[in-house]
Amino acid sequence: MSEDQTHSDKMKALQAEQKKKTSEARDPGRGLVLVHTGNGKGKSSSAFGVIARALGWGHKVGIVQFIKGKWITGERQFFAKLADQVDWHTMGEGFTWDTQDKARDIAAAEAAFQRACDMMASGDYDLIVLDEINIALRYDYLDVQAVLDGLKARSDRTSVILTGRDAKPELCEYADLVSEMTEVKHPFKAGIKAQRGIDF
Amino acid sequence: MSEDQTHSDKMKALQAEQKKKTSEARDPGRGLVLVHTGNGKGKSSSAFGVIARALGWGHKVGIVQFIKGKWITGERQFFAKLADQVDWHTMGEGFTWDTQDKARDIAAAEAAFQRACDMMASGDYDLIVLDEINIALRYDYLDVQAVLDGLKARSDRTSVILTGRDAKPELCEYADLVSEMTEVKHPFKAGIKAQRGIDF
Repeated sequence: MSEDQTHSDKMKALQAEQKKKTSEARDPGRGLVLVHTGNGKGKSSSAFGVIARALGWGHKVGIVQFIKGKWITGERQFFAKLADQVDWHTMGEGFTWDTQDKARDIAAAEAAFQRACDMMASGDYDLIVLDEINIALRYDYLDVQAVLDGLKARSDRTSVILTGRDAKPELCEYADLVSEMTEVKHPFKAGIKAQRGIDF
Repeated sequence: MSEDQTHSDKMKALQAEQKKKTSEARDPGRGLVLVHTGNGKGKSSSAFGVIARALGWGHKVGIVQFIKGKWITGERQFFAKLADQVDWHTMGEGFTWDTQDKARDIAAAEAAFQRACDMMASGDYDLIVLDEINIALRYDYLDVQAVLDGLKARSDRTSVILTGRDAKPELCEYADLVSEMTEVKHPFKAGIKAQRGIDF
């Protein structure tokens, strides 16, 4: 058998396997819950990439940022121009080490989460990103049971992506997808500055 | 010491550490090379998220897709509307198991890479995404040394993101950042269909 023939057979087998998988897959009948966690880069940026995807299909998107505060970021400037399709809310008051006031941090997180719950239950959104909510959970600014209750009460139409390192086990248990971003090699560790248009 | 005081002290220490890191960091003086690999979701979508970031800062972006072929995707429909800031090239002819013709696959990959090299060397782009190029390398449709040579010959202005599972060690060695996306829990495995606006 020629090398080309072997390749063709291999690809045919892959194709058949793929078709089988696709035909057997069922529609979940409800928006998915996705968790992006881990200590590597890509947790928030892949959520922004999924937003771009959703917008390409004409979907309606909401974002609530729990931690990033008043920083000017590329993503915020970019999606702000698409205000008819994207509702962007930044509820944090900067990274927590900039506020040094736990009561204020908790109040900001709770207000952000209340907003998120209203959006999730409204039925107005195909996709909602709760950016860095895992950080708010990690510092006990939010209660994990309250977050689970909010997710369960979401509209069937709505998928939700929750980002941030150290995702709670209860959240991963409930989620349909958990993706972990691992830092294999990182430029900040090599002493390189965060780059505009790459890191923020 | 009150709990609030302890929290405040902890946050002050974090803030000081962060400031030290930031002040010591140097500008790389050149665009970075980033690899998104691993068997989990988020490799391409985080590249699309970085594109959104870059566009928010008014940067010029190019994308060459090596594998995805003629599929209609949300990202393609979305970024197609931004043609003044984004050059989008899809050079593959569908997933390889749809072509079953190795010679044609190799020719398509080589043409895509030649286009990528021209773009990287041109100095016209702040960011170029070589989407799924790792798959083309994995099937030996492209030579890793040729890819390294192309990256090294890029304009100083240009950062490059290379996506796809099974990134070659030589590529990771050269890259400034390697981020690995790991599949912790995946809905397709639970028999759920790929979702428009989430998965493509």
